[in-house]
Amino acid sequence: MRTVIRNVTALTMDPSRPLLTGIDIAIEGATLAAVGGVPADFAPDEAIDGRELLALPAFFNAHTHAAMTLERGWAEDLAFEQWLNDKIWVAESALEEEDVYWGAALACCEMVRAGVVGFADHYFWMDQVARVVEESGMKALLAWCHFGIGTEHELGQTPFEETVAFVERWKGAAGGRVRTTMGPHSLYMDPPGVLRRIAEEAHRVGVGVHFHLAESQEQMDNSVARYGLTPVAHAAALGLLDLPEATIAAHCNVVTGDDLALLAEKGTWVAHTAKTYQKLAMAMPPIASMIAAGVNVALGTDGPASNSDLNLFEVMRAVGLYQKGVQQDPQAMPRMALLRLATEAPAAALGFTGSGVLAPGRPADVILLDTTAPHWIPRHDLAAGVVYTANSGDVAYVWCDGRLLYRRGDYLTLDVERIRWEAERRAFRMVGQPMQSMRAYQG
Amino acid sequence: MRTVIRNVTALTMDPSRPLLTGIDIAIEGATLAAVGGVPADFAPDEAIDGRELLALPAFFNAHTHAAMTLERGWAEDLAFEQWLNDKIWVAESALEEEDVYWGAALACCEMVRAGVVGFADHYFWMDQVARVVEESGMKALLAWCHFGIGTEHELGQTPFEETVAFVERWKGAAGGRVRTTMGPHSLYMDPPGVLRRIAEEAHRVGVGVHFHLAESQEQMDNSVARYGLTPVAHAAALGLLDLPEATIAAHCNVVTGDDLALLAEKGTWVAHTAKTYQKLAMAMPPIASMIAAGVNVALGTDGPASNSDLNLFEVMRAVGLYQKGVQQDPQAMPRMALLRLATEAPAAALGFTGSGVLAPGRPADVILLDTTAPHWIPRHDLAAGVVYTANSGDVAYVWCDGRLLYRRGDYLTLDVERIRWEAERRAFRMVGQPMQSMRAYQG
Repeated sequence: MRTVIRNVTALTMDPSRPLLTGIDIAIEGATLAAVGGVPADFAPDEAIDGRELLALPAFFNAHTHAAMTLERGWAEDLAFEQWLNDKIWVAESALEEEDVYWGAALACCEMVRAGVVGFADHYFWMDQVARVVEESGMKALLAWCHFGIGTEHELGQTPFEETVAFVERWKGAAGGRVRTTMGPHSLYMDPPGVLRRIAEEAHRVGVGVHFHLAESQEQMDNSVARYGLTPVAHAAALGLLDLPEATIAAHCNVVTGDDLALLAEKGTWVAHTAKTYQKLAMAMPPIASMIAAGVNVALGTDGPASNSDLNLFEVMRAVGLYQKGVQQDPQAMPRMALLRLATEAPAAALGFTGSGVLAPGRPADVILLDTTAPHWIPRHDLAAGVVYTANSGDVAYVWCDGRLLYRRGDYLTLDVERIRWEAERRAFRMVGQPMQSMRAYQG
Repeated sequence: MRTVIRNVTALTMDPSRPLLTGIDIAIEGATLAAVGGVPADFAPDEAIDGRELLALPAFFNAHTHAAMTLERGWAEDLAFEQWLNDKIWVAESALEEEDVYWGAALACCEMVRAGVVGFADHYFWMDQVARVVEESGMKALLAWCHFGIGTEHELGQTPFEETVAFVERWKGAAGGRVRTTMGPHSLYMDPPGVLRRIAEEAHRVGVGVHFHLAESQEQMDNSVARYGLTPVAHAAALGLLDLPEATIAAHCNVVTGDDLALLAEKGTWVAHTAKTYQKLAMAMPPIASMIAAGVNVALGTDGPASNSDLNLFEVMRAVGLYQKGVQQDPQAMPRMALLRLATEAPAAALGFTGSGVLAPGRPADVILLDTTAPHWIPRHDLAAGVVYTANSGDVAYVWCDGRLLYRRGDYLTLDVERIRWEAERRAFRMVGQPMQSMRAYQG
């Protein structure tokens, strides 16, 4: 399949030529054949008029629990303990394996519509998620969450061996679009012995690890009291930061200067999900200090039960606004840096090397935004438009590995009508409510 | 004209019945004839299938400079002084009267598309804005900005009498959809003698006032040093908080406890534009303390040169996320309170009494959101959906005073294609750039 996009403007994220206007872009198979300078003899199967459209690398999501779409809106404006214990875990106690398929499918619809083609997922019954990724044409790094400490949470009862078998079973599947990694929940929900074994298995299988790290002052205090180490230093001591593939440490809300130096030295990816931190009133990680210390940072959404959505426009905007406001510096977190944190950075964290930049030979993970809505006009600064005014309704075309997934309201790989219906009916079942098309306001 | 919306779900903002499901809503002329319980003999000219749609009071914007759409994206990631002096005032020095018409028309397109039907505008050549409001079918409270202190800013040279004549000329025009108010820039750009005279004219004409107040610690310090009064106390002493109609004090970023008591006592409306405060790294007003002290607060966007857009979804979300995060309380700023701050509160601030609640006899200022996009599913909590996941692309229908302004991509009163073209070409002229459909990235 050969596609050409004609007369388009591109925010390439290639520092040598960040913005190109009035160019043609050629996609051949799974690859960008040309970004400008399309050979005259390139004969496309399809040609798209790119005028008034903006080409951008597709977004990637560095940390989520996709199937938690089913709990979107179920627990709002609540204290954290009440949110988790009274609402989220109660709903999840009714989760069935097939629910994960439909919840993840809904998440894929939402992400594709928002220009997100890849995500790092961390949940249960992950074969279901892998199936959705395979069918949807998207990319993902999948981890089966493991709780090693006695818990009431029945989802934590999956035997360790099964979670490892999942990693081996789906590693590199769907032509490399499905990647896998080890998925302990955290240092506070898995004991040191299990975590060491997870590191060993990661070496044996040749993968990395994705887990929650250093989310609160309480975790910091407990770790220091129990192990004499910060959570980050403890993770390093357990071997979790030295694996064959990437370590994704979600959050790192509470870290020391030494922790940052260690994370930078190890090349650990910190997934930063700022909208959730604000919504749940978690400590805000020192993202500016992290970046200054050379830590790899990538943006993510966390699950929709906390974050409400799976939209990287929202996360870029939340990070930019929050950091400018709190640092009291309007020059903090410039727009091109935010864009990189939502494209090239998370793609690299997930192991999809080469994505996140529009350049010849790169994977054709591309989106086109329609810039004709009034909120784009005048088009003085397209990067500012993407970061501070765009929304998912502006996304017109989405390709992943050269396959067109979405075109102006049409989902080309996902049966959105059926997914919507199945997901909503299962979500209502989980919370013990009758199916209805519009549930009552809870507050 | 009689319209009925059948089988719709409504977030009414009426505390006695906040959410109604599967009801019919009847609009007759400019008024809501029924919200549920539509009489069997109500014979509509048009019937709309309301399934999968959510009815909500339309949004109002308590403070903006609409024509500054022309400078959207022109000054990004800059220090405040550089933003204002090197970029905004340079561009505005090229502003021509007709530019205001097209900039405001673009703003109206953007607001209508985002479900905003009314706005408090504060700018120059305001007859142009009044024309747009009249033509668009929207509502507005208009103030001609007055600089009384010698300034290089040529827009400040409009004689005082002309700004008052505007207020008299358009007061109550367009069947009451155009309201007017006095518009000094601020206590630091207008001397006390002029401000006293403005208060006198407001009494004579029977209007209120809309101005910028207490935006920084520097203004606070200067006011105390020069007058022995905080800016709020000084405004009160000048008579600006005791007028025949509402006082809108934009911002009040830096205020004392006594200031809050005074604002509450006077019933002054504080316009809170949080996205701009974060983007320009201004001090964040203590909105929680304001509300606790009984101050009238309403949300607004400020101008798009700072705020990027004119979208109340964005402002509600920014306020909710920021306040939860900074107060370290996930229960802060609950969603129904945020909705009220973007609907009933700004409508009242602008003097459009009765708007902001869906109830029989109220003005038919109504929007319908399409809730079928994946980011809405499952519909566990519609208020949370509006505040934390919705975007302007979800707005399907917009009525103002019973007149349909927007229907699924069609602007029924505004020539969006021409407005887009005129506004963009004028915007590029103002900044000395050649017209092109997509301007280069500036950063």
